[in-house]
Amino acid sequence: MMKIELYDTTLRDGAQMEGICFSLEDKLRIVQKLDSLGVHYIEGGWPGANPKDIRFFEKVNGLKLKNAKIVAFGSTRRAKNPVEEDANIKALLEAGTEWITIFGKSWDLHVRDVLKTSLAKNLVIISDSIAYLISKGKRVIYDAEHFFDGYKKNPEYALSTLKEAQVAGAEIIVLCDTNGGTMPHEIEEIVRETKSHVSLPLGIHAHNDSGMGVANSIVAIRAGCTHVQGTINGYGERCGNADLCSIIPNLKLKLKLSCINKGQLKHLVEISRFVRELANQGPNHQQPYVGHSAFSHKGGVHIDAVRKNPVAYEHIDPEIVGNHQHILVSELAGSSTILHKAAELKFDLKEGSQELRKTLQDLKELESHGYEFEAADASFELLVRKHTGRYKKFFDLKSFRVIVEKGEDGKLFSEATVKLEVNGIPRYTVAKGDGPVNALDNALREALEDFYPELKQVHLTDYKVRVIDSASGTAAKVRVLIESSDQEGSSWETIGVSENIIEASWEALVDSIEYLLLKNQGQKK
Amino acid sequence: MMKIELYDTTLRDGAQMEGICFSLEDKLRIVQKLDSLGVHYIEGGWPGANPKDIRFFEKVNGLKLKNAKIVAFGSTRRAKNPVEEDANIKALLEAGTEWITIFGKSWDLHVRDVLKTSLAKNLVIISDSIAYLISKGKRVIYDAEHFFDGYKKNPEYALSTLKEAQVAGAEIIVLCDTNGGTMPHEIEEIVRETKSHVSLPLGIHAHNDSGMGVANSIVAIRAGCTHVQGTINGYGERCGNADLCSIIPNLKLKLKLSCINKGQLKHLVEISRFVRELANQGPNHQQPYVGHSAFSHKGGVHIDAVRKNPVAYEHIDPEIVGNHQHILVSELAGSSTILHKAAELKFDLKEGSQELRKTLQDLKELESHGYEFEAADASFELLVRKHTGRYKKFFDLKSFRVIVEKGEDGKLFSEATVKLEVNGIPRYTVAKGDGPVNALDNALREALEDFYPELKQVHLTDYKVRVIDSASGTAAKVRVLIESSDQEGSSWETIGVSENIIEASWEALVDSIEYLLLKNQGQKK
Repeated sequence: MMKIELYDTTLRDGAQMEGICFSLEDKLRIVQKLDSLGVHYIEGGWPGANPKDIRFFEKVNGLKLKNAKIVAFGSTRRAKNPVEEDANIKALLEAGTEWITIFGKSWDLHVRDVLKTSLAKNLVIISDSIAYLISKGKRVIYDAEHFFDGYKKNPEYALSTLKEAQVAGAEIIVLCDTNGGTMPHEIEEIVRETKSHVSLPLGIHAHNDSGMGVANSIVAIRAGCTHVQGTINGYGERCGNADLCSIIPNLKLKLKLSCINKGQLKHLVEISRFVRELANQGPNHQQPYVGHSAFSHKGGVHIDAVRKNPVAYEHIDPEIVGNHQHILVSELAGSSTILHKAAELKFDLKEGSQELRKTLQDLKELESHGYEFEAADASFELLVRKHTGRYKKFFDLKSFRVIVEKGEDGKLFSEATVKLEVNGIPRYTVAKGDGPVNALDNALREALEDFYPELKQVHLTDYKVRVIDSASGTAAKVRVLIESSDQEGSSWETIGVSENIIEASWEALVDSIEYLLLKNQGQKK
Repeated sequence: MMKIELYDTTLRDGAQMEGICFSLEDKLRIVQKLDSLGVHYIEGGWPGANPKDIRFFEKVNGLKLKNAKIVAFGSTRRAKNPVEEDANIKALLEAGTEWITIFGKSWDLHVRDVLKTSLAKNLVIISDSIAYLISKGKRVIYDAEHFFDGYKKNPEYALSTLKEAQVAGAEIIVLCDTNGGTMPHEIEEIVRETKSHVSLPLGIHAHNDSGMGVANSIVAIRAGCTHVQGTINGYGERCGNADLCSIIPNLKLKLKLSCINKGQLKHLVEISRFVRELANQGPNHQQPYVGHSAFSHKGGVHIDAVRKNPVAYEHIDPEIVGNHQHILVSELAGSSTILHKAAELKFDLKEGSQELRKTLQDLKELESHGYEFEAADASFELLVRKHTGRYKKFFDLKSFRVIVEKGEDGKLFSEATVKLEVNGIPRYTVAKGDGPVNALDNALREALEDFYPELKQVHLTDYKVRVIDSASGTAAKVRVLIESSDQEGSSWETIGVSENIIEASWEALVDSIEYLLLKNQGQKK
């Protein structure tokens, strides 16, 4: 079976999307998820263009990955710079990765109008840049930017840029449809023609501007490419990059090509949602394979037929990619997910047991209210603990009040009061804060730290809010995700859902504290 | 030039989507828009399955349409019914349209497992149903449901169902990829093969379950189909139908085939948004051709290149489909970005002017505090307005206060008071809400709507919060992004930044309101 290499660029090209801004911690978490999915390369960033990416490479080189190679991305040297003095090339070397992807120009229009150099000099730029990186011990993937547009206008020149990259020592040549305007039949013809001129393995990098991102990737692979670039959920500039969440199952299930294994494919839905949460994006229910509605049946005819034989209106078994058939409104995570989690935590939970049934029931109830546990592992663990007798309450909340005031002088003031009991001992505290959630956090800590001094080590490292049902405007339900860390550097994520952002934040705060206290208690035993 | 017929099924197959429910009035308004777009057929509904659709056909037959033929949709007769007594066939005739589309089974599995009849009897059902409708003076389009799946399993039988429809008098035969699981190369082979067996014009009806809805439609047309079915925005069950908003420009601009004219194509964005609003769906900013981000540029390299030559990173001129180029104002925004924006807004702002220098200074100051304008166009426009004398204050805030309380009974309570002046007239209002931001929004509207009744049309459609400096925990600064829409379907995004989530939300709310009021004022001039 032919093996196809998957190259993920969610963290670089995906992050170019309007509204996406990954933190360093987000990027590191995504790297680990992508590695577990089984992608072969992870493009981490462009150190020459984004100073924040330099720190990412320092950190990511310390991670132990099972499957993926980390790749640094950058451009060929500037026309006026000698290669060894080019800032972008230097930054690429400093990233410290074994693999580097550099892109160069294949389209004569770009060489003339954007680089403002001659066609001949552009060939030297490509050759120089690749050869220099290789002389420093790097392995190079060459992205031929605008290859298809360039080929359509001037095929000889476009091909000559590839030959330059091949001679200079690149190991893979990636044909990019950078503007996303190429039709599938053109992709097919041009890939076939190019393959007869280049001996290196070819890759495809497609964009979705004509709605062809996935199709062009698949067509290119059938025409001879063995490497495919894309992003999770098709995130990317303009209309996005080709969506790996469609490409992967199409390769594996439809073209029967080897890329990731069956066990990894089962996590596709989970990873799609995980990345979506960290990207702070709304769900695309219609997304092929992984969308919430991808296997939903509304039409009476369809439901009836699907009951008679699921293959009647389903092109694949949804479980293969970790999705589910939805007939009625209720749904989602099955008992196997819970069993898996319980096993991970070494809790004794049996298939068919009452505890399992109740956990599942509770989970479904919460999901129907907008909870999503893909990016809130700690809250999910608390849920499992509650149903397996591994949960303990550390305090009883009686009431809270939060006030935010903006006075005539324009000054802001936030105050929270908390009334609670720890082992029957009442606490009534008040605290100011930089905002309502901070004030609440402060008042809660004030009330608890005498009893649980370990809370002093916890701090909140990320805080995200999303509207779930946007049609209700400011009255909409919000989902709060909180990431907390302790001084040893471990971090955990919790969730809260409510129409009231203060209440949702409170829920997530309390989960975070309970999680830490339970974890510490476990260690003391 | 070969002419391609467009067949819209937004009102029938599109309405099968989770969450879509068109009123009768909605459907009639959409018919008129589709007619003005120039589609050739509009499938209005399934009178045999949906009693509401009967009233629709009564009404729609009274409309004068310039381009489109209205089509009623239904299934072939039931196995046990004589055709003249079949309720579905009767309802089709009662719809009173000249054209009728009926679907029948091409896949032997469906004939056996769903219809539960014999392969031979299914042929009679198809033949009967079509011939009867024709005997009543109707013109018939035949939808071969699951044709590609059927062909893959039993090509002789699948083809025999088409021949039956042809002999019975259908005028167009539509090959349906009902489950959306077929790959483009299979579509191409099967359409070519089928064309050699059938003399009638062929159509394609594709679904998007493999991310191939648009590609399969285009591939089928290149292989010989001359009729294409789809929906506006790709609405439809599961992953949706093929998106006409991508198919139409691909046909016209990429394949150079005739379908609608240039003037009609310019309304594509408007029609996409109109249908979206009536369908009450959130926007898909990444949607090819018509999405808000379809021609947005964020990366510094791209912006620089697009200025030098737009074709560098744009596959078509966005104006052709009624869209626009957006230069996103991201970090390191220079004066050229501001000039570009000002030109887009038709504001007179000169290179080297004092206004430009001050705008840039202000922008950099705001960016250093965590503002990011790339997803907050409306706030950016306000900023430019403030520095070019195009800004007006509509009210003066004096103070606000927000209280959130959770009582001993566990009940939540949110209240906001707002004190402000409109043209010197004091307003002091109080309102409850589902949360603090909703309460504040309510109190603010309460204070302003007497003066500015147009605010009643505005609703908030998305609300996002992100921590900027996550190291400060709950004291961290947050960035709030609000998306608002009016009843005409235009939407705008505003931003607020503060350590206090209430203050940040307030800022974004006020920007949203000011933006609308300024825009309306401009229109009145």
